[in-house]
Amino acid sequence: MRTVDLIAKKRDGEPLTREEIEFLIQGYTAGTIPDYQMSALAMAIYFNGMTSQERADLTLAMVNSGEVIDLSAIAGIKVDKHSTGGVGDTTTLVVAPLVASVGVPVAKMSGRGLGHTGGTVDKLESIPGFHVEIENDSFHELVNRNGIAIIGQSANLTPADKKLYALRDVTATVESIPLIASSIMSKKIASGADAIVLDVKTGDGAFMKQMSETKDLAACMVDIGNRVGRRTIAVISDMNQPLGFAIGNALEVKEAIDTLKGEGPEDLYELSLTLGSHMVVLAGKASELVEARAMLEHSVKSGRALEKFKQFLAAQGGDATVVDEPHRLSAAPYLIDVPARKEGFVSAIAAERIGLAAMKLGAGRATKEASIDLAVGIVLRKKIGDAVAEGESVATIHSSTEQAAEVLDLIYESIAIQPGQVERPPLIYEVIG
Amino acid sequence: MRTVDLIAKKRDGEPLTREEIEFLIQGYTAGTIPDYQMSALAMAIYFNGMTSQERADLTLAMVNSGEVIDLSAIAGIKVDKHSTGGVGDTTTLVVAPLVASVGVPVAKMSGRGLGHTGGTVDKLESIPGFHVEIENDSFHELVNRNGIAIIGQSANLTPADKKLYALRDVTATVESIPLIASSIMSKKIASGADAIVLDVKTGDGAFMKQMSETKDLAACMVDIGNRVGRRTIAVISDMNQPLGFAIGNALEVKEAIDTLKGEGPEDLYELSLTLGSHMVVLAGKASELVEARAMLEHSVKSGRALEKFKQFLAAQGGDATVVDEPHRLSAAPYLIDVPARKEGFVSAIAAERIGLAAMKLGAGRATKEASIDLAVGIVLRKKIGDAVAEGESVATIHSSTEQAAEVLDLIYESIAIQPGQVERPPLIYEVIG
Repeated sequence: MRTVDLIAKKRDGEPLTREEIEFLIQGYTAGTIPDYQMSALAMAIYFNGMTSQERADLTLAMVNSGEVIDLSAIAGIKVDKHSTGGVGDTTTLVVAPLVASVGVPVAKMSGRGLGHTGGTVDKLESIPGFHVEIENDSFHELVNRNGIAIIGQSANLTPADKKLYALRDVTATVESIPLIASSIMSKKIASGADAIVLDVKTGDGAFMKQMSETKDLAACMVDIGNRVGRRTIAVISDMNQPLGFAIGNALEVKEAIDTLKGEGPEDLYELSLTLGSHMVVLAGKASELVEARAMLEHSVKSGRALEKFKQFLAAQGGDATVVDEPHRLSAAPYLIDVPARKEGFVSAIAAERIGLAAMKLGAGRATKEASIDLAVGIVLRKKIGDAVAEGESVATIHSSTEQAAEVLDLIYESIAIQPGQVERPPLIYEVIG
Repeated sequence: MRTVDLIAKKRDGEPLTREEIEFLIQGYTAGTIPDYQMSALAMAIYFNGMTSQERADLTLAMVNSGEVIDLSAIAGIKVDKHSTGGVGDTTTLVVAPLVASVGVPVAKMSGRGLGHTGGTVDKLESIPGFHVEIENDSFHELVNRNGIAIIGQSANLTPADKKLYALRDVTATVESIPLIASSIMSKKIASGADAIVLDVKTGDGAFMKQMSETKDLAACMVDIGNRVGRRTIAVISDMNQPLGFAIGNALEVKEAIDTLKGEGPEDLYELSLTLGSHMVVLAGKASELVEARAMLEHSVKSGRALEKFKQFLAAQGGDATVVDEPHRLSAAPYLIDVPARKEGFVSAIAAERIGLAAMKLGAGRATKEASIDLAVGIVLRKKIGDAVAEGESVATIHSSTEQAAEVLDLIYESIAIQPGQVERPPLIYEVIG
């Protein structure tokens, strides 16, 4: 097999066989296939796409390029949840204890990550004492005992995907649906999931801005999952405005706690129930979505979900008293209100720009090495469709300095107010799978 | 300017500006743009093509990446001729002295090259004493005095093209017409040509097998030439069978001498007259093709063309007596006839396979470092459409060893004989420009 012939084959629109894809991924991981051949191949895939079988083969080839997590020591069907990423997306912090509280085993591997705010691990670290450095055996034991544990991402997971992603980033080949889909799915499968619920965001603040490509990506991931024997469901949800109100690490933890108490933002609660219900059904803890949802709602109302969160925090060294005393979380020294400059109805909240504002405050990382400020961020007060009075606060900036003029400008630029009433965008567009 | 943004621009079908193309080619030549970005760009160009302006800009950017030959010390319009390559293509050896004999200055830079036989320089080196290592000043002086000289290719010509070509070769991006066209044209322009006549081969033994893509390539090169101020003409000629009868270095020199005497193969003579006529017109030595052709025919008949060839050989150290005594050329020790196995009419002579047979004899190089045997090769006895009697020789193998079974088999596989009459393929399909 010659790499150049395989590039030509893909370039000419012919599908690659499993053996050919394995040859390419193994060679690339081992360094015997150079970057310049892989980038040409990625561009050919960008133009010619991949068949359903090719995408599944690519995903498994990337899974097999590194460590594959074995969760068989944990009883039950392990259902993982993945979000394609948005602004103010706190669902993992809500959904994980929520489904654990009804008996779905949550054995999650989470990362730090780049972006407007930190990853799930960063957010949880705003709780004093909490840590994710657990040995595998203790991890399995914790999940078996408490039904939930979160561990840091293994460095050896899907090395082929890491290498390929870095290459795609500098060769304009990120925007290929089969490559995005196999990248995401390979990580989930290597993490040991038996079944997967995907939260695929669409809109201004999401990676996928157009509904048609969002649907393509969702369908593509569901197809890969099912082909490789992992039942997979994708929920397409709105990211034309931030989810919930909080954007920032400790601020989002606080919001997640409120939501687990039944006092959080409506959209975050609703999305958590939707994603959670699918997880409960996939885990075999309920046979119907409506039944699963009722179980989750009851768990929130009865306080069981919140108790599960406390148990989870304590088991990983965290100070669970923050749940009842949220002022113990990291807090920014300066709170700056953003008063509306006119009255009317909120017609847009440009999620990506709000995310950028949070990043400027220090809530996120631009590079892997950057440090983040867990306390800072933005708390919005309005959603699209809400009425606003002139001078009424539309957001509060949580800042580490008194000066936040640039962030203030960004927020003003992001929030559009118009005289007439505005329809609220739907939260969930479609469920695929 | 960021390379990744320019790759994305081309990927999305937008044309690149001159400044962007210069940035890419300069960066790639300097090594600041890595191979993996250039190969992704080449693949995007493969799919999205290039506009007429982009192709011209790319060509000039590659010209300016290295040395540009200055032929201004040579009087007159310097017309270069280029062939896209075929099997048994001896036209340069005929055309160069032919047009020089009617006053067209021939200041040619020629290479060795890879392929079924050597390049023009290799072929000429089968003449004892002949050499192309000449200083620039002597080169100009020779052309001014005799009207003809051939010099070896400068190593510093179009380094961007050399680097890009090597990359395309291993990334399945060779087959892109704008990239092929700008590669060829950049070398011709950097060699100092004022005007260019292209011999674009089409058919089984050519790089371009299909007429439609041959025409595209020809039109593309003519367009580049004219856009950058070099009058360019493309002749599309047949390569469904080898040109002439000889395939091999010394064998082709002998055939060229025969042709300059007016005793060579019809097709080689006709193509030489066609290409030569265009060169004469472009050089301003005749205003009409018919007039130019008459001049060239007269030059052959009067012996002036042959005299010019002798003068040229002698001026570069060659033993000009070979022209009258061709047995002084390198000769192979074994001549093996290939008798027809049945009677009928020749319906095909697979040029590429015949070329391969010549290469197996040692007439060509597979790698830059390989040495070649100037004496060996194949002399065909038939063209497509010719009648053949059973047992009649259809070819003679000129071999360095007694054993040539593999070559014999290849020749038998190449030459198809059928019972009924066969139409002869046209030699020249079209002239563009």
